[in-house]
Amino acid sequence: MGEAPGAAYLALVHGPVVNKHGAPITTAVTGLNVHDIARTAATYGARGYYLVTPLEAQRRLVARITAHWREGHGAAYNLTRRDALEVVHVAATLEDAVRDVTAREGRPPRLVATSARRPKGTAPISYARLREALKAGGPPVLVVFGTGWGLAPEALARADALLPPIHGPVPYNHLAVRAAVAVVLDRLLGEDDPGAGT
Amino acid sequence: MGEAPGAAYLALVHGPVVNKHGAPITTAVTGLNVHDIARTAATYGARGYYLVTPLEAQRRLVARITAHWREGHGAAYNLTRRDALEVVHVAATLEDAVRDVTAREGRPPRLVATSARRPKGTAPISYARLREALKAGGPPVLVVFGTGWGLAPEALARADALLPPIHGPVPYNHLAVRAAVAVVLDRLLGEDDPGAGT
Repeated sequence: MGEAPGAAYLALVHGPVVNKHGAPITTAVTGLNVHDIARTAATYGARGYYLVTPLEAQRRLVARITAHWREGHGAAYNLTRRDALEVVHVAATLEDAVRDVTAREGRPPRLVATSARRPKGTAPISYARLREALKAGGPPVLVVFGTGWGLAPEALARADALLPPIHGPVPYNHLAVRAAVAVVLDRLLGEDDPGAGT
Repeated sequence: MGEAPGAAYLALVHGPVVNKHGAPITTAVTGLNVHDIARTAATYGARGYYLVTPLEAQRRLVARITAHWREGHGAAYNLTRRDALEVVHVAATLEDAVRDVTAREGRPPRLVATSARRPKGTAPISYARLREALKAGGPPVLVVFGTGWGLAPEALARADALLPPIHGPVPYNHLAVRAAVAVVLDRLLGEDDPGAGT
């Protein structure tokens, strides 16, 4: 597997996140979000994908899923799935994920949050600017996604920058987090339009 | 729900598609692909999302899922899910989907295929060019995605144009079809970088 020019990592946070009323909750890890997002991370050359959950049993569940596809019957059955799952890690907290990226890269990552709304208080950054920073081989970047109704305020406050919400041409924006991850990574790391001019 | 300036539709084909050896198969409809892709279609203002399957029992299954969220307990529980599922239709064949779009729009759609490889024989079109055509309010467009290992040769041969495969900066490209749909719609209909310049 190759690597992106810039060191991009992502984290999917299951707790603390908020529910539809803004109260802090912990969501369940789904196998779907392990697999789909691992494939997306591998396609865009992300160096690591952290599933963040404070629940130890859930972290063990992720370890079992990845072991099956990395070493078990799954590995022999589906080689591309095995490759994708090589990027998967678990972390109890966002801080633990930051520490792990720091250890791998030799310097701390820039923490970039995402949100379907426009929370105040975190410095905005455009997709174009972050894309350029990654291309230029700047500091590692850890892009953070929330499950449920989004990242808890403390995670947003901890971030160095915030990417704008994803919108199409209409007011409705309720992408599945799996779809949002794909769109964000494509905007940051996707190939330039390969057929441009045709 | 608003609408995109251009009339964009999408189709997810479950048969005929090919398996990993290139043989024609029919895949099973998954509830996940109904929900995730409906939410993506609604976010990007697509006017319709066709689940194409030759199996009548599978078409009934989709109708049951959408009825639950449109009219049943689900509608009261989750209004945004109900809105998303308003775009969902079923069709026995790609031709039936084309006929339905034609009836709705008063003219036949341009059929644009997608593929994770680069099949020969269909005229390529760039994302930028198709995006401009949609913005300019040109003819309706039906973007076609395959499940399994992709669209069967007859569906590719029937298409008026083919979008390039989605790549990041590495050779690996094994996006889930749900992720591929999100990336393609974002490239065609996503808002211009809202934070550009910051």
